[in-house]
Amino acid sequence: MDDKSWEKAVEFHGHACPGLAVGFRSAQLAMARLGVSRSADEELVAIVENDACGTDALQVLTGCTFGKGNFFFLDHGKQVYTIASRARQKAVRITVRHMAFHNPELSRLRGAVGSGSASQSEQKEYEALQEKHIKNILESGEDCFNLAFVDIKIPDRAVIRRSVTCDRCGEPAMETRTVKQAGVTLCLPCSKKEMGE
Amino acid sequence: MDDKSWEKAVEFHGHACPGLAVGFRSAQLAMARLGVSRSADEELVAIVENDACGTDALQVLTGCTFGKGNFFFLDHGKQVYTIASRARQKAVRITVRHMAFHNPELSRLRGAVGSGSASQSEQKEYEALQEKHIKNILESGEDCFNLAFVDIKIPDRAVIRRSVTCDRCGEPAMETRTVKQAGVTLCLPCSKKEMGE
Repeated sequence: MDDKSWEKAVEFHGHACPGLAVGFRSAQLAMARLGVSRSADEELVAIVENDACGTDALQVLTGCTFGKGNFFFLDHGKQVYTIASRARQKAVRITVRHMAFHNPELSRLRGAVGSGSASQSEQKEYEALQEKHIKNILESGEDCFNLAFVDIKIPDRAVIRRSVTCDRCGEPAMETRTVKQAGVTLCLPCSKKEMGE
Repeated sequence: MDDKSWEKAVEFHGHACPGLAVGFRSAQLAMARLGVSRSADEELVAIVENDACGTDALQVLTGCTFGKGNFFFLDHGKQVYTIASRARQKAVRITVRHMAFHNPELSRLRGAVGSGSASQSEQKEYEALQEKHIKNILESGEDCFNLAFVDIKIPDRAVIRRSVTCDRCGEPAMETRTVKQAGVTLCLPCSKKEMGE
């Protein structure tokens, strides 16, 4: 495991948690299977099917970041990541195997800590178990995941579009995100206001 | 300017560019106006109205990251950022003032470099001008931006929802992202397949 990358993911996310570790390990295994390293520009593409903690580790590790045009979000509420390499024209889909990281004792302690009913020793026990759990995830093997090459159409590279000025607020907006109404050009927020939404 | 934060933003994004610098400076000025520091958990909330380079700097600087539930994306194609502090119950909206960072010579050279028609000296000139332009943005004052406190309803903290298993693919999905069809529970991708989409 690359400790430095994990530390960077924790720093970016703000704290270490099992969700972050699952995203980290998923991205790491998918990249290993693809035989690729971090994407400085848009060499890699990631399609994430949730917006939870793991996506932060994925951004740090893969270089597929929200602002670079190579990060695609599908709001499916599923811990599924698809990572593709443009150069190799290959994509890997990865998800955690059912119950692979199930830890009932940790769940119980988390509940107690969350509700404020945990004793001091339970709090300590929770922290130690959480740390161990994260370590286990980070050191887990492919057997904890379902990992497979998939046949997908890799999304195109990001396109830079020109901006136009909204006739109401005077602010620039990407042309493809404006509407023409009765001869005026409006950005989406102004258009919504105009429509009384 | 905090050089270390800028370096971290560049490392996260993969390269330095004017868009990244605008997002960085916007976030920095908004945070200064709010009197807040980076969000380790969900103390801050960011609403971004584009998914371009600047949002990566904002994630790094504010700690409002895609995977933490305190980062909200409105697909308006506008370089507008609203940053709110839960503790202070205040929000600042910031956007670049019209033409503040307009640089026709840089645009011309970027066009030449992009199309492959730039001479070697133009390529060098472009790189030097781009570096200077980024520095100017990072050192720019509030006069280059429209920055104001705004009255918004700060989005609620992220809620962790339980997962259920999809009766088709057997993969877990967040309960609120599943549908019940003819007595079976389906995740959204399986539901779409079922509907023949």
